[in-house]
Amino acid sequence: MPSRYLSFRCSVPWLILFLQTLFLIHFFLGFPDVGNIYSPSDFYPEFQDVNHMVIFGFGFFLMVLRRYGFSSTGLNFLLIVLGVQCSVLVEDLLVFLRVQQSEGGMRSLAKAVVSMAAVAISTGAVLGKANPVQLIVMSLVELIFFYVSRCINRTFLQVPDHLTLMHVHLFGAYFGLAVTSRFPEPPPGLDKNRSTPKSDLFSMLGTVFVWVFWPSFNSILADHKMETVLNTYFALAVSAVAAFMLSALTSKDGKFRMTHIHSAVLAGGVTISFTARSLQHPWMAMILGLLGSVITILGSHCLQRCFNPAFKLQDTSGVHFTFGLPAVLGAVAAVVLRVIEKVFSTQQSHLSSLGYLIFVDVGAFCQTISTALITGLITGLILNIKLLKTVHVSKYFDDQFYWEVSF
Amino acid sequence: MPSRYLSFRCSVPWLILFLQTLFLIHFFLGFPDVGNIYSPSDFYPEFQDVNHMVIFGFGFFLMVLRRYGFSSTGLNFLLIVLGVQCSVLVEDLLVFLRVQQSEGGMRSLAKAVVSMAAVAISTGAVLGKANPVQLIVMSLVELIFFYVSRCINRTFLQVPDHLTLMHVHLFGAYFGLAVTSRFPEPPPGLDKNRSTPKSDLFSMLGTVFVWVFWPSFNSILADHKMETVLNTYFALAVSAVAAFMLSALTSKDGKFRMTHIHSAVLAGGVTISFTARSLQHPWMAMILGLLGSVITILGSHCLQRCFNPAFKLQDTSGVHFTFGLPAVLGAVAAVVLRVIEKVFSTQQSHLSSLGYLIFVDVGAFCQTISTALITGLITGLILNIKLLKTVHVSKYFDDQFYWEVSF
Amino acid sequence: MPSRYLSFRCSVPWLILFLQTLFLIHFFLGFPDVGNIYSPSDFYPEFQDVNHMVIFGFGFFLMVLRRYGFSSTGLNFLLIVLGVQCSVLVEDLLVFLRVQQSEGGMRSLAKAVVSMAAVAISTGAVLGKANPVQLIVMSLVELIFFYVSRCINRTFLQVPDHLTLMHVHLFGAYFGLAVTSRFPEPPPGLDKNRSTPKSDLFSMLGTVFVWVFWPSFNSILADHKMETVLNTYFALAVSAVAAFMLSALTSKDGKFRMTHIHSAVLAGGVTISFTARSLQHPWMAMILGLLGSVITILGSHCLQRCFNPAFKLQDTSGVHFTFGLPAVLGAVAAVVLRVIEKVFSTQQSHLSSLGYLIFVDVGAFCQTISTALITGLITGLILNIKLLKTVHVSKYFDDQFYWEVSF
Repeated sequence: MPSRYLSFRCSVPWLILFLQTLFLIHFFLGFPDVGNIYSPSDFYPEFQDVNHMVIFGFGFFLMVLRRYGFSSTGLNFLLIVLGVQCSVLVEDLLVFLRVQQSEGGMRSLAKAVVSMAAVAISTGAVLGKANPVQLIVMSLVELIFFYVSRCINRTFLQVPDHLTLMHVHLFGAYFGLAVTSRFPEPPPGLDKNRSTPKSDLFSMLGTVFVWVFWPSFNSILADHKMETVLNTYFALAVSAVAAFMLSALTSKDGKFRMTHIHSAVLAGGVTISFTARSLQHPWMAMILGLLGSVITILGSHCLQRCFNPAFKLQDTSGVHFTFGLPAVLGAVAAVVLRVIEKVFSTQQSHLSSLGYLIFVDVGAFCQTISTALITGLITGLILNIKLLKTVHVSKYFDDQFYWEVSF
Repeated sequence: MPSRYLSFRCSVPWLILFLQTLFLIHFFLGFPDVGNIYSPSDFYPEFQDVNHMVIFGFGFFLMVLRRYGFSSTGLNFLLIVLGVQCSVLVEDLLVFLRVQQSEGGMRSLAKAVVSMAAVAISTGAVLGKANPVQLIVMSLVELIFFYVSRCINRTFLQVPDHLTLMHVHLFGAYFGLAVTSRFPEPPPGLDKNRSTPKSDLFSMLGTVFVWVFWPSFNSILADHKMETVLNTYFALAVSAVAAFMLSALTSKDGKFRMTHIHSAVLAGGVTISFTARSLQHPWMAMILGLLGSVITILGSHCLQRCFNPAFKLQDTSGVHFTFGLPAVLGAVAAVVLRVIEKVFSTQQSHLSSLGYLIFVDVGAFCQTISTALITGLITGLILNIKLLKTVHVSKYFDDQFYWEVSF
Repeated sequence: MPSRYLSFRCSVPWLILFLQTLFLIHFFLGFPDVGNIYSPSDFYPEFQDVNHMVIFGFGFFLMVLRRYGFSSTGLNFLLIVLGVQCSVLVEDLLVFLRVQQSEGGMRSLAKAVVSMAAVAISTGAVLGKANPVQLIVMSLVELIFFYVSRCINRTFLQVPDHLTLMHVHLFGAYFGLAVTSRFPEPPPGLDKNRSTPKSDLFSMLGTVFVWVFWPSFNSILADHKMETVLNTYFALAVSAVAAFMLSALTSKDGKFRMTHIHSAVLAGGVTISFTARSLQHPWMAMILGLLGSVITILGSHCLQRCFNPAFKLQDTSGVHFTFGLPAVLGAVAAVVLRVIEKVFSTQQSHLSSLGYLIFVDVGAFCQTISTALITGLITGLILNIKLLKTVHVSKYFDDQFYWEVSF
């Protein structure tokens, strides 16, 4: 059936070529202030950490399917390098539109790489179901909407710039979920959407990388570096401990389950991302890490049994409970902590400003999540039009349709 | 036989929960001097190296058994994140008891991560034989005794603080050996305690990580950074070269043996750890690296043929010759070098102090190794009481008893 | 047939021992100015990146053959640690001969590690065909000739020191090609010189490491760090994008081919290496990255179909198109850019110096490539004399002849 057979020769390369040409033209016309691009910066080691985490860590973290290893790492790599250029372009456009000030090239690149975490997370939700064309379209649309959402937060709600970046997990997870809800479900008896011990080991490799580099991810653009690093580290440590505890507690025979470990060890880093710079005691960070882990493991059981079947969602690598729920928890915690801080520490005069601050935090959270869901749904609908060569469900989760695999 | 079947549901999670609650309470009550925790530090890149080395490097380094990959990396991860918190707690307790001065949070964390190398090494000795409960108890007991041993060295023998940390390999190896001697031996025909080419490759991956980050490990808290880094690098380079040479020389047909390479390339880093900061010529470091490699490869042959059968030891990943013997050599070399330095360089008046210095070095060495052996033996006896659900020898070296493995 | 059976017991260890003794004696006699070795340096994080890239990245990058994983990583490791010592020795000899000034130990080590990339690249060309003795001899001869070539460039053509180092890819690739042309071809039906999905994944792991650390590789000794880092990053990003585009365009059914990705994502880093520090606009770097990727993928098709069969070359891991062609392109681009820059920017008076500058650039390029080819051919001839126990073609590409492999 040649009509059913998918060849991406006429779509993938030309789409990539078109985008790359666009980026090149932009860069050619774009940066008039050369001195500024190459202005020195002092966070090159942290930048390398984050770069490594996003490209290598997330690439191997996503390698959970038994026959989808090449695509997990390879396509993640492609999306990141495309997205980073797109990010710098959008960033530059915002400077041109006077929405934000011009910054050095290194700082701009660091923001771009951090933003790419959203794409990597969304990719996890549609892992094995979207073809390369769909993934590329999705990642660029997502990036642009993430920048729009950040702009709204920054301009109308006065959220500091680097805190808007920390919505990256929230946006990525719910955007990805909304997109994946528009994809047809795989048939129930499919064997390919399971992991093997080998793929789990590779995924563990990526997980450890993401875990180790998370303090750099949270602190790269923060103003209180030491606080951010230490709080993130403690939150991650506690969430890793809690991951093992809860995995043994909730699984049959008290055995550990690798997928629990993969997701829950990272929960602390996500939960702490909004508050890492402002927490004044490590134990608060640890509590947040613990709660992040709890919500992840409980979420993984509840969502997979109740929520996902009800909404006909198929969240391949579990980004909802790995990144979505902890990010919601983190946002709620940020509001609660702000209230507590204000109530305990200040005089009467400040209470009036408390309402405003809560409004800002809650507003930023609601705006981000609703933008993510709405734009995700629309993107999901667009991705499933015939033009983009949707993959048949029987061909899900398989490298062979995108890669020349030799055995 | 349900009574024989081991379920860790009633032990592992509750033990972890108990410990984590303890740590949380401690952190809640503990740190009164907040400004101090978050005091700035300039060794964040090195800290990341060491963190990566201990969690990722040792985790994959231990992946030598064919069916024990999940446990090697996963349980190592669990022990490190638990241990780091325990370390910070102990450190804080020592400050409270006025045994040592309060330091910044980053420095305290760095010490904690370095100390965890002892636990990772001991885990290697009982790899595949101890269940998670035993491992957790072992690692915490070991950490506490390592701190006690360091305290004795620092208080009574006036060894500088960061040098006491460098006993980490010595303590870890002999503690692990003493513990493993109390475990029953696996049956001789067991196939599971061998490696496959795949597990060897993963182990090589971890070994290279440990090798690359070793200069950071030795230098992170040292006062002469450049000396430490360069001497460690040269020692590691020579020991890697010597590892290949001796492996080809001692094995059948002049072929390389992967286990030799794994252990001997690291020998230089262990041997140099006491003296890296004070050596004034790279060739001395190189000689030490060479000797470390020689003692490791010869040791691996002698120990496995004579020593281990005689003492009924079963040292799964060979920590005795990988870390134990080179650490002994390094301690001896430190004494010899100090004698030579004093004799050659000084007037008569200093010779009287030489005896004292040698006494200190030898005393610290003997105290550390005997503490390790005695506390290790006791820990080994405690671990093998019924309460801790010792694993039957037929169930050694297998992921299936601790992890939900799907094929 | 015992006479045909190769045992390396009488050759490999003694050769290594001889070399290591030589290095030790040199270090013993060599460094008289101790204070200088341990002089402080501020690029330790970058050094770690480059060290990691050369040892880990290239080691796993070369793991493309299905039965040659141990040798790919293990022997690469051996060659690097031997070569680094040899490099430092040669560097020191040059200081002794007053050809260059004495520098700090760290800087000297950084140069040594960067130079080792040439050896790693050449190893890729003879991968699976040369035995350990041949590899060791080849790497040392290559290193020495690379230093000679750099000396000529620096002394007679006044090329700045760190730019001479950037010829490392050019030299490595063409030296390796010339050497491999002297090895007998493997029989056509051989199955062992193909990759499996597993080996491809490990190779991807190495590739990502090399990619991520490339900005550090190019910038470690450069004087305009920020320019070098950013230009290299953009060139790498575009070449990675172009790699996917061109792979889908040139392969059957528009599928991606893993070998294309492995080689072409790195092309940008090679192409930009000469000009990264001087480019004043990111789009120039991006164009170079794009061209690098194009030449790599087109080269991989042309060379494998026309050039290699014609010259009876067997370039196992494709170093000609991965490193050779992009390096040639980079050298040509450097000349073109210099001409454009001079013509556009200066008055009449400078045009006279233009000819000289072009002569220098072209001269350095021609000198490097011809030295590489000639010395490579000679080395290839020497390596294939009986004394060095050449491997029979039926024993190519197999770990079993050099490693004790247990299944």
